[in-house]
Formats: sequence, C-alpha cells, structure tokens
Amino acid sequence: MRRIYLDNNATTPLSENARRSMRAIIELFGNASSMHKDGRLARQAIEKARANVAALIGAEPSEIIFNSGGSEANNTVFNILAERDFGNRNEIIVSAIEHPCVLASAQKLEKKGWKVWHAPVDEKGKLRISEFNKVLNEKTALVSVMLANNEIGTVQDIAKITQLAQKAGALMHTDAVQAVSKIAVDVKDLAVDYLTMSAHKIYGPKGAGALFVRTGAPFLPLIVGGHQENGRRAGTDSTLGVVGFGLAAKMAKNMIEKYQKIAKLRDELQRQILKKIPFTTVNGDGSLPNTLNVSFAGAEGESILLALDEVGVEVSTGSACASGDGKPSHVLMAIKADPELAHGSIRFSFGLDNDMKDVNYVMRVLPEIVWKLRAISTVKIGDKNE
Amino acid sequence: MRRIYLDNNATTPLSENARRSMRAIIELFGNASSMHKDGRLARQAIEKARANVAALIGAEPSEIIFNSGGSEANNTVFNILAERDFGNRNEIIVSAIEHPCVLASAQKLEKKGWKVWHAPVDEKGKLRISEFNKVLNEKTALVSVMLANNEIGTVQDIAKITQLAQKAGALMHTDAVQAVSKIAVDVKDLAVDYLTMSAHKIYGPKGAGALFVRTGAPFLPLIVGGHQENGRRAGTDSTLGVVGFGLAAKMAKNMIEKYQKIAKLRDELQRQILKKIPFTTVNGDGSLPNTLNVSFAGAEGESILLALDEVGVEVSTGSACASGDGKPSHVLMAIKADPELAHGSIRFSFGLDNDMKDVNYVMRVLPEIVWKLRAISTVKIGDKNE
Repeated sequence: MRRIYLDNNATTPLSENARRSMRAIIELFGNASSMHKDGRLARQAIEKARANVAALIGAEPSEIIFNSGGSEANNTVFNILAERDFGNRNEIIVSAIEHPCVLASAQKLEKKGWKVWHAPVDEKGKLRISEFNKVLNEKTALVSVMLANNEIGTVQDIAKITQLAQKAGALMHTDAVQAVSKIAVDVKDLAVDYLTMSAHKIYGPKGAGALFVRTGAPFLPLIVGGHQENGRRAGTDSTLGVVGFGLAAKMAKNMIEKYQKIAKLRDELQRQILKKIPFTTVNGDGSLPNTLNVSFAGAEGESILLALDEVGVEVSTGSACASGDGKPSHVLMAIKADPELAHGSIRFSFGLDNDMKDVNYVMRVLPEIVWKLRAISTVKIGDKNE
Repeated sequence: MRRIYLDNNATTPLSENARRSMRAIIELFGNASSMHKDGRLARQAIEKARANVAALIGAEPSEIIFNSGGSEANNTVFNILAERDFGNRNEIIVSAIEHPCVLASAQKLEKKGWKVWHAPVDEKGKLRISEFNKVLNEKTALVSVMLANNEIGTVQDIAKITQLAQKAGALMHTDAVQAVSKIAVDVKDLAVDYLTMSAHKIYGPKGAGALFVRTGAPFLPLIVGGHQENGRRAGTDSTLGVVGFGLAAKMAKNMIEKYQKIAKLRDELQRQILKKIPFTTVNGDGSLPNTLNVSFAGAEGESILLALDEVGVEVSTGSACASGDGKPSHVLMAIKADPELAHGSIRFSFGLDNDMKDVNYVMRVLPEIVWKLRAISTVKIGDKNE
C-alpha cells in the first residue's frame, strides 16, 4: 500500500545526504576527545558540522553547543536560571503555547520560588503583545517564546518580542525547533540570547540537537563534568548524530523555496477540506508553510488518525510529544478552541517528499472517514458550532 | 600504515552487527511517540533494545531509562538529590577516583549545601572500606562508587559497599560504564539502586546510554517535559542510537570469555614493558581484564602518546574525558603516585580487535620512543624512584 507521511512536525526521515554521510561516518569511530589520529578525525568532523549548523542560523560556530536534542536544549536554558544568581529578577514569562518541555522546565522553577507568567495568545495563536507587556517588568529574568508552534504552525514576531524583553533587561530564548529550515531564521535579526534547534526536524538524525548561546550571554551546563563543547556540555560527542545534523543543516540552508512549494500543497488540502467536509475549523494562521491543523466537529481525532493510518496516511493529533494523555491540547485550549472540537483535531504536517497526489489521495479517503465517525459519535454536530 | 587501536576505554568501534542493524534502522525513521504505523515500528525497535539492555545486567526492562550516555546518566542520579527532599540526610559519599562527571555532579550539590565525602582508595585504587565506614552514617543520602575505574582498571567490591551503604539507609549508585561486558555485572548481585551504562564502550554507538533505576528507588528526571521513557526522560527517542545500543548489549552478553583472552594480551604487554623498559611502574591492580596503565619515569605521557600515534599506535594518557587540562590525573594522585611519574603515564586499553601481533608491534616501537624522550627530558630518572 502507498504510504503518505504527513507527520513531518513529529519527525522527518533522514535525507539521502545525511544517510550517506552517516553510513560513511560509521567508520569514523574515534572519541573526539582523544589526542590520537582517530580522535582528531572525529573532532574535525564535529567542527565541520558545527560550522554548518552555525551558518544555518547566522551564528558563530563558538555559539553552538551540541547536545541530545531540543528537549535537552530547552531544559538547559531554564537550568541556567536555577543554578545562577539573578539578584532581584525572579520572574519568567513563557507563552501559553510553548512545547511541554518548556512549560515543565518553567514549572520546575516555579517550585523553586520563581514566578512564572503564561502570556496569552489570540485565537490564531499569536502572542498578545499588550498582555505580554503587562507582565514584563524589571523583575523578569527570562522570556521564552517559541518561534513557530509545533501543533498549529503559528509564527511569532520574535524580533519584536526580543526587543521588548531586552529593553526590560530580560534574557530572551526562542524554541526554533519547528521554524528552522521552513522559514528564514537568523540570530542576528532575531537578536535572541538563546535559540533551540533539533536535527530530526530538518532531515537529520534523532538524538542530536543544539543550543545557540549568544557570545556573552549567561551560561551554565545542564550536564556537568567534561570539557566537551568547551565545558558547556559534558559527555562523549555523538559523532554520528552531530555529523548527520551538520549535513542536514547544510542542506536546510536552501529549503525556504521548497517550503514555499510545500505551502501550496498545504493550502490546497485546506481549501478542499473546508469545501468538502462541513463543520470543520482551521486552527492557527498558516504562517508556518507546512502545517495544517483542522478540527472536525463530532469526530475523535484519535479515531481519525487510526482510520487514516489503516489506509496509509500518517498524521498526528497535535503534538507527538503529548500523545496518549487524553487531555485536549493545551495549545488549542490557549487559542480558545471548543474543548469538544479540540478532541477532533488533526495535524497534517507536510515535508519535502509530499506532492499533489498525496493531497488528492487524502481527499479521496478523509471525507468518508469523518462521516463514518460522525455517524457513530455521541456528540451531535452543530449543537455548539453552527 | 598498520594502525593499532589501544584506546578502547575511551571508545570502541561499532561492532559489525551494530553497524548492520543501524544501517537497516536508518529506514525506520518514525517518532516512537507517534501513534501511526511508522511510530509503532520505531517504538517496537526501542522496546526490543530495552529488553536486550536489561538482560545484559539482569534487570527488568522497566528499570532501564535510555538517555544520551554515561555522563547524562551520572548527572541524573545526582539531580534526584538536588530536586527531592531527603529530610535529615544531607551527605554524599563518592570515591576519590570517580569519573569527572560524578565528581562535578557532587560538587554541584556541595554548592547547594550538601556535605560531600571523597572516600580514599589504597595504592592499587581499591576503596579503603574502613575509611569509607568512618564517613558513612545516618546522614548519608547517596553513595556513588564506580564499578571499574576507566584509567587504571581497578574493580571495586560493589556488592559489599552496597550492603554497607544500604545498612546505613543510603541509596547506592555505581558507574558501570567501563565494567559492563568486560566482567560479570548483575544488578541482583550488586543490589545497587542505580547503575550507569554507555553504549559506545561496548561496541555500540556514541550518544546512547542508559540508567538502571531499581523498581521503587526514588527518581526524578533531569530532562523534563515529555512522556518518553515513561515520563522519566523527555526528548524524542534516538531510535538509531538505542537500536545500536540494543544490538551491542545482545552481543556483550557473551564477551566475558573474550575479555579473558584479551587479559592475556594485556598481561603479556605488561610483562614485556616491565622487563624491557626500566623505571616503569604499573598503576592499578589489573582487575579489569583489558586495561594497563603504566608510568614511565622521565618522559611526558603526552609526548609518548603522540610519538606512538605517529607510528600507528593509539593510546591515551589516562582518561580521554580529562584530556588537555595539563593537571596530573586525579586518579593517579588518589593512589599516591608520584606527580612527576603521573605525568609520564600511558593507558593501554585493549579490545576485541587486538591480537598478539599488536603487543609485539608496540614492543618494537615503544622502548625506543621512551628512551629518546628520556634523553631530552629535564627530569632525571631515578632522582626519586630508584
């Protein structure tokens, strides 16, 4: 059976280039901390990857700290606050639609006595700047707002938010895991102090990520006890992961145009769904080119997902990271979606391998699936949503 | 040029089996948290790996938490103490020869008000049980003693130390990164609460490790905000790393005999060095079968390393993790080695790919290298060591 993968926000397949380089690099087994030839070869490969990852976001190589992925990077930023004296600054602002690992990291600080503000977003998922300004003050130590949301694809105006945060003397972090490669991301334009990246969202391997730390920004390692990454992240470098990440980053530099083509597929799917399946709502503002989040009234998202899977279409109900806990998505709750509608939400996230045939196939199978599920549902369509 | 790799304590090459499985698994790209088919396939591969890793140390699969490696695992154990209330227990005991990431994690707790005891070892690197008993008391929350030392290969009697620790009501952790696969390691015999493993020391990939946490032992995650690893370690599972680790673990179950053969190579190199190169001292008691640490009076370890590298022999000066800071090894200082001798130390760590030809080749090149370096050294041999 033809399989159509529309879950590229959860993870992307390894690009052929990354595969090739990783197959080659399997031979390069030295410990990059070793002084002998095999160690030096591993070190060179890692530094080449660092240059590529830095170039992707307009950073200096020395500003890139390799680690195990986006969750570690986000945890690392919040750990700086836990470990360092910030004087009178004991408040943090995060947006209400951050990734669970940012929200959990903030909650950890809350337990240690920090005040955490969850800045609200509008019905499209955009940060409400006026509300944000109300909680931003001289006690704010850190602002953390994601560049592009993983569930609904809304892109924030980080440059503007950074300007406000830094004017108040706060540090600025952005989780750019979903944005990198899909839209232009340059740390000089964004002017952030910290930026999170993940390899496996840009056709690199899982288990590799990076934290950009602006030169001069406060830093303390989360994982201590080794001189790797200039003393900023202990642990033997994952040569294979880092090299795959480097190749993926090199390729990702020229993906913006490709994602503009991908946006057309996404737009066409959205147009057809809204046209052919009544009682549907699109969540988010479409600013991330590959993401379409749709709520189908009177149908369970999980049931739609499994039915699509059976006919070869792979999608997600919001975030893969939050799968299985039964609660409606905190992102959809933050944009004030109807809780019942939120339970009927599906995220279609397109990638480089998709084409218009995929859109057409989805539209051949999806309407019938939705109607069958609606027929057996106890929730009556239109009770609230007409 | 023939290259002889004698730095297997720094890292091991990927086994052919792990390579094969990783090449195959490159196709298996799904996010193990996704509910669709590609996600489920990744999940199955990870759970198969978990069973293999658990079986290697006699644990239950549910007691294995995958992560990015040994340093993260060790940091995670100490983070439990930082995050949890241990009542009146505010002391920790580590041995003086722990890996830097354990010592740094302990130091981090020290800054938070914990009392840290560094239990001394004897001149062979064995924990002095009587000294250990003096600092072990009803205030001890955690004892962390490594199973086998990475630099000198001394193996501790962890079962006995655990018994003492637990009698005092303390939790017991052992860093078994260097021991696993080389000697028998069974968590039921050792009775520890926590045990650290690393994939790339047992012919698996870098960037993959595991922490064994005994069922019922206190636990809090270091990286928060995801349901992965049963809520115990957030972040998308590194399928490639974990699958390679699983295959390596499966193979490692039958390596003890191979390491007994490797011990014969190590013993022969030791015999010949002591016989043919005067003013040499062996550090450690030889209990780890593959490790030989030798101090050459009147020669710099780093110079020996680089000269050996030029003729194709790869070794280390103590730990790769501590390379480049110029200080004599804390392990050699703890066994009361002469500081000048410590600077002239080389670690030969054998692996599955070595044979007697390697030993013979080393002995063809090493004596001349040592004598040439001694001839230009400012340190006179025998001043202190005759």
